Amino acid sequence: MSKIRRVEVLKHILESNEQIAASLKALWSKNQTFVVNLLSSPGSGKTTLLEATLPHLKDRYRVAVLEGDLETERDAERIHALGIETVQITTGGTCHLEAHMVKQGWEVLNDKDRMDFLFVENVGNLVCPASFDLGEHLRVVLLSVPEGDDKPAKYPVAFRSAQALVITKIDLLPYFDFDLDRVKEEALAIQPNLQIFEVSAKTGEGIRDWVAYLEAVRARLFDRPSP
Amino acid sequence: MSKIRRVEVLKHILESNEQIAASLKALWSKNQTFVVNLLSSPGSGKTTLLEATLPHLKDRYRVAVLEGDLETERDAERIHALGIETVQITTGGTCHLEAHMVKQGWEVLNDKDRMDFLFVENVGNLVCPASFDLGEHLRVVLLSVPEGDDKPAKYPVAFRSAQALVITKIDLLPYFDFDLDRVKEEALAIQPNLQIFEVSAKTGEGIRDWVAYLEAVRARLFDRPSP
Repeated sequence: MSKIRRVEVLKHILESNEQIAASLKALWSKNQTFVVNLLSSPGSGKTTLLEATLPHLKDRYRVAVLEGDLETERDAERIHALGIETVQITTGGTCHLEAHMVKQGWEVLNDKDRMDFLFVENVGNLVCPASFDLGEHLRVVLLSVPEGDDKPAKYPVAFRSAQALVITKIDLLPYFDFDLDRVKEEALAIQPNLQIFEVSAKTGEGIRDWVAYLEAVRARLFDRPSP
Repeated sequence: MSKIRRVEVLKHILESNEQIAASLKALWSKNQTFVVNLLSSPGSGKTTLLEATLPHLKDRYRVAVLEGDLETERDAERIHALGIETVQITTGGTCHLEAHMVKQGWEVLNDKDRMDFLFVENVGNLVCPASFDLGEHLRVVLLSVPEGDDKPAKYPVAFRSAQALVITKIDLLPYFDFDLDRVKEEALAIQPNLQIFEVSAKTGEGIRDWVAYLEAVRARLFDRPSP
């Protein structure tokens, strides 16, 4: 398997983010590459969720990951260790991924036109990434139990723009004053169509439902049954 | 020839952030108002740290708090419940506080020219607030145990620009694979002068040292003994 590749993004000023995102989405849809944008605060468990998810997909699908970070290649190394093709996108300080960065990352994938799933892990930031369409088919916001149950109302843009909410680290519920019902109620008030999952990457709870959802949405979108 | 580039200016265009921050700092220094800017991811415990800190100060000092949030007044309500004058700055989507926002918040305080301590709780975001000087005397970055010990290297700007690091929720250390020595080492590699505190607002551990530090820095800065 190839090494992790690194993309240091250049400034893109010729096309708007919306234009690039739209053309990426058209291309990915044509290729039947289902693209998932993962968005959360630092430390909510985006990489850990991927580590728990990818083993369920990688033997049946062609899967790749683009890792967005301000600095370091640590997350990419964790995913690469699973035998998944990974590209590190280092933003060098920019607080979110933009479509041109994702395009540059996707272009260096070995088999870019034949991927079934492409996961994009955004920069850890619950605010800014929510404003940038990356051309993804599914936007997922993560909220970890230790962050607190007041976050949907305080950071509404991220929740409003997502199709799924994954509540992570639910094995920690006994140690926190975290009201699951409150979170669900507030999140659904912001985005009534939100699909909500409760998972623990540590115990494995909820992971199979989450994986089944990803497969089902992909199959529905591309109008063909799961393999 | 390149296309015309777009600059999305925020509301304040007459003076730069640096100019406003510098004039605020001069004014606060003259008034001997010690201003502390608290910066972290959502859910690291900024409001909770203030709830644990303010009772130690409020009987001996004139203290006020400016609460920065995208939406809601929940944090301001929590601080106000302690009997502390609090102003809510709702950014309406902007991912960080800027000096002109802080100026507007400070100006509505009842006793703005006679404050000893002014705490500014920034928007929950470990990236963008680090780039905006608010005129503060002390910048404090918080990192909670559940966020993970890899954060200083991944979000270096916040750690580099701070004078103090408060590691919060240390009562949770038994439940997480969080290496305190690693965090300290990485944070000090980024910012060698960082003062590091380990606290638990829940058990009270470390709070007195942290409060003593705030008082000492203030006293040293304004060249007079603590009252």
